[in-house]
Formats: sequence, C-alpha cells, structure tokens
Amino acid sequence: MQIDYKQAAEIIRSCDDVHILTHQSPDGDTLGSGYALYFALKQLGKRAAVICPDGETKRYAFISEGYTEENFEPKTVIAVDVADPSLLGSVREIYENRVNLCIDHHVSNVMYAEKTLLNGRAAAACEVMYMLFKELGIKTDSNIARCLYTGIATDTGCFKYGNTTADAHRIAAELIGYDIDFARINREMFDIKSRQRIRLEQHILNNMEVFFSERCGVLCITDEFRSELGVADEELDGIAGLPLQIQGMEVAVTLKEKSTGGFKISMRSAGRVNVSAICTKLGGGGHVNAAGCFINESLEEAKKKILDLTGKALGELN
Amino acid sequence: MQIDYKQAAEIIRSCDDVHILTHQSPDGDTLGSGYALYFALKQLGKRAAVICPDGETKRYAFISEGYTEENFEPKTVIAVDVADPSLLGSVREIYENRVNLCIDHHVSNVMYAEKTLLNGRAAAACEVMYMLFKELGIKTDSNIARCLYTGIATDTGCFKYGNTTADAHRIAAELIGYDIDFARINREMFDIKSRQRIRLEQHILNNMEVFFSERCGVLCITDEFRSELGVADEELDGIAGLPLQIQGMEVAVTLKEKSTGGFKISMRSAGRVNVSAICTKLGGGGHVNAAGCFINESLEEAKKKILDLTGKALGELN
Repeated sequence: MQIDYKQAAEIIRSCDDVHILTHQSPDGDTLGSGYALYFALKQLGKRAAVICPDGETKRYAFISEGYTEENFEPKTVIAVDVADPSLLGSVREIYENRVNLCIDHHVSNVMYAEKTLLNGRAAAACEVMYMLFKELGIKTDSNIARCLYTGIATDTGCFKYGNTTADAHRIAAELIGYDIDFARINREMFDIKSRQRIRLEQHILNNMEVFFSERCGVLCITDEFRSELGVADEELDGIAGLPLQIQGMEVAVTLKEKSTGGFKISMRSAGRVNVSAICTKLGGGGHVNAAGCFINESLEEAKKKILDLTGKALGELN
Repeated sequence: MQIDYKQAAEIIRSCDDVHILTHQSPDGDTLGSGYALYFALKQLGKRAAVICPDGETKRYAFISEGYTEENFEPKTVIAVDVADPSLLGSVREIYENRVNLCIDHHVSNVMYAEKTLLNGRAAAACEVMYMLFKELGIKTDSNIARCLYTGIATDTGCFKYGNTTADAHRIAAELIGYDIDFARINREMFDIKSRQRIRLEQHILNNMEVFFSERCGVLCITDEFRSELGVADEELDGIAGLPLQIQGMEVAVTLKEKSTGGFKISMRSAGRVNVSAICTKLGGGGHVNAAGCFINESLEEAKKKILDLTGKALGELN
C-alpha cells in the first residue's frame, strides 16, 4: 500500500528495534538514506541497525562514520532505495516477506513492502528521506547532512544529470551548511581514480564495440576478459557510463558475465532513449537514463536482444 | 572604487550603448555573465555588444544563442569576470583605461575599473550577475537562465568543488526551471570528449612527473611536446586538473611554453594547499584551488621556482 509522508512519519514515530535494509551492490544513495535513517532513529531514541546484503565497500566507509553496530531481533524492517526484493540479495530470504516500510524513489518499485513511501519525482531516495525528516521534525546534523548529501550527489552525478530536481539543489544548499566536506566527498566519489583504474578504463574503451552510426557503445565483460585483465568484479563498478564520454554516443550497454551463467546488463542513456523501457521489456527496470536487466543466454543472444531494442529506440532499426 | 549591488544597478539603469568585455581564453563563466548581461540590457531596451578578445570557441557557442551582433561606438564599457586588464588580451589597448564598471568575483581583482562590483564569496561571476539582476528587476528567461547556469556550473565543476556556495545551489534550483537543457550543457561541458582527446589525456598523464611523495604532479607542455603530438593550444584546454584524478594527488602544476617565450603556469589544488598564494608570489593570482601565473624563464628554472613554493606549502620542504 502506498502511503504519504505524514503516514510514513507516523510509522517511524511509533516503531522500534529497526533493521534498515539497503540494496545489494550498495551505492551512495542506498547507504546514504540507510545511515541517515539510522541517525534519525537514534535522535528519536530508538534502536536501529543497518543491514547491507553485501557488506560495505571501503569506498563508502565515510558515510557510516559515527555508526555503532548493535545486535537485536528486529520488530520493524525498513528498506531504503530497494525497488524489488530481488535486490536484497543474500538477505532476501530472511526479510522479503517482512518489510514493513519501503522508502524509495524508483517508479519501477514493485510494491513488495507492507507500506511504501514512493516519490518517483525525487532524484534520490535521500531526497525522499530529507522530506520525511522535515515531516518528523528531525534536526539535521553533520552526520545526517553527510549521508543525505552523498546520496543526492551520487544519484545525480553531482547535479549533472537530467534527473536533478530543483529540490535536490535546494536541499544541497541547506546540507552544505552543516560542516560537511562536500568537495572531498565529491572528489572521492567522482574524480579520484587509481593509476590502475585509469589504465583499466582505457583498455575497456579501446575494446568497446560500436553500433548504429557510433551512437551506441557496447562493453562486453566476459570471464575471459576479466581474467585476462586480472581484475575483480568490484574494480569494474561504475564502468557502465564510460562510452557516453565519447562525442556522439547516446546509449551505452555493458554486459557482465555472471559466474552463475547469463549476463547482467547495465544501460545508460545520454539522450532521449529511455533505457528503462528497454530493460523493462527484458524483465528489468530502472530510470530513463540508467537501467538494468538480466539475460540468461549466451553473449551473442544477449547482445542481439539488447541491440534490437536499442536500434529501434534510436530509430536505426524498424 | 568598490560599489554595491544598488549602485551597480543604478549604473546599468542609466547607461547605454554598452560594450561588454570578457577575458581572453574565455570560459563558461566570463561568457555566461557577458551574454546574460547582454540579454538583460536588451530587456532594458539598451544597445549592447559582447567583445571577446580571442573570439569564441565552438565549445561555448550555445551560450550566445539569440545574440545579434551590432556595430556601434560604446558609451559605456563593462568588464565581466575580468580581474586584471592584462586578461583583456588583444583588446587591452582599446579598453584598458575606459572600463566604467567591472563585475567580478575574484578577490585578486586589481581594481582597474572606474567602479567595481566585487563579491569575493560568490562561486562565479554569474552568481554576482544573478544578484544584480534581482536588484534590477530583470525577468529571468531561458536565455538568461542558460547563460547564468552555465557560468555557475562551469566555475564550480558542476557544484563539485569547495567554492560551491549555498547560493550557487539555490540559484541553480531556480534556473533549471526555465526550460534549459542543463543535462546536455553539463554533458558537453564536463563529460564528452573526442576519442582523440581521450588518447591525448592518456599520453599527458603517462608523461607526468611526480614529486613530494606523489602528492604533486607536474605536466610540462613544451613546444616540442606539442609538435610531437600534433596538437594545437586550444586542444590542451582544461588539462590542468588531470593529475588530481589520481589517488593521493594534492597539487597539479601545468607549465605551458609560450610561443613568445617563458611559461604559463596553471595550478590546481585538491587539498588544503592555497595555490593562489603560491601564484601571487610569482606575480599571478586566482582562487585557493585554481590559480595561475607567468614565469619568463627556462623550463628548469620555472619548475624549480614552482616546486620550491609547492614543497613548502605541502610541508615537504623547509
């Protein structure tokens, strides 16, 4: 059942012993909204713990500064930025049927939770969280500001993408006043790369396949490619947008071979192509400019399916 | 003489036949504030022309959409984002002693104009311009919004750098409501590169020299290097920040050999080092995180001077 901010605030006020669930392969928005909610619940005098299906990466460790782990049996389960229970990964079985509240901004949310606070116009789950905190009268502090800013900045590519809302800017204007080193956060989220990463990206771009008058770039990350390069999966995070760096590119497709078979597809769009519509047709979902799906077939078959739909969306195929 | 927004508005209201001067090697902020002022003056029924010392690059052509060139003798000269008359380049002799008003945000402004509206806390000259327009009662339209947004976005690295103010975010929140394709602007300003550019950057990074426990990267762009690569000066715009992409780098130094002798130095800082203080000591200036100067000596001498000051600022030299 979909609920509004007032109703969600009521649930938060009356709940206790909360397990907060983030999605697997956690990003800045799911972790930012998860830990922001933790700090807000602490302010309200409640017990809370953040559960990350994959554990956390070093990259985002700064978000949880000030967090204290506690073990307890949850009375309430809240999922943040989790559009589908399949994204709960390793903790899916434990929590899938007992999510009391889901706080999200994905229009593709499948409404698996008992109650869902969904704002599909928000740039980030952290934007929804900010509005909810206002409703609750939560006092913004530097921990909350750091978490919310990180989520909004990462989900908008630092206010660069078309999903950036006026509210995202207005909220950021307030949050950067709370003694957060946003320049450092942004530098670490967007700018800094290891020398190895720089070489890796170069190699990936040099091996990109190009289709439809150079409007679509395809990256195939097979097991063979990975072992050739000697890189772990984690090191390949964030490569999906690489082809869009190149003049004229409108759609980027990344096919990552899964160890259990099949291909995880990530699509990015820089123009008018709605990649969420393409991925939805293949059983996935996401946003207009960033979406994903899974195709359990051979590389050639997976590529063919994606390229057929992409070519049509670009008007290059009938 | 320094004046406030009210006084500057009075000058704008009573002036006519305005030549608007941008600085040489124009960037998004000087062009954005220059053309925004043009559109505002048109709204006030005045004659105006934008004078770019170097002409304009294709990269920023979108800023001036809707501009109509007119030839007339100026009664008023207004410089925007021009901290020093030396930045007037090829038109310096014509205008240097007759700038009636300078609108700027560089604390290093040498106060060469008859009157100067300076807001050193503003992230961009376009932020100052926005405030001035409010004072003037100018109606924001999509032309003005596009110009001001571009200036603020480019001078803050799309709201990424430490110079980003709460006002910059608040103004952006308003401007993106005026039917401007900010995602496309940002993509073109920050993301898109030609394949050639990608290769060029790789080559430059591979030839970077590294000092002070890998905290300082130095790029030497000599005539020899340029002709080896076969690139024009314009193609090397924006390389100054490249070393800061690499983990651990705090200061980036670029030395570009000038055809007339000596080296143009660009410095960028990602940490606490104030590169403006360093460049000021060498006769230049700028911002805490981005500054420049000119050293009329050999490459070795120029490098030595810069590295000596940088090493001290990093605490690596006494």
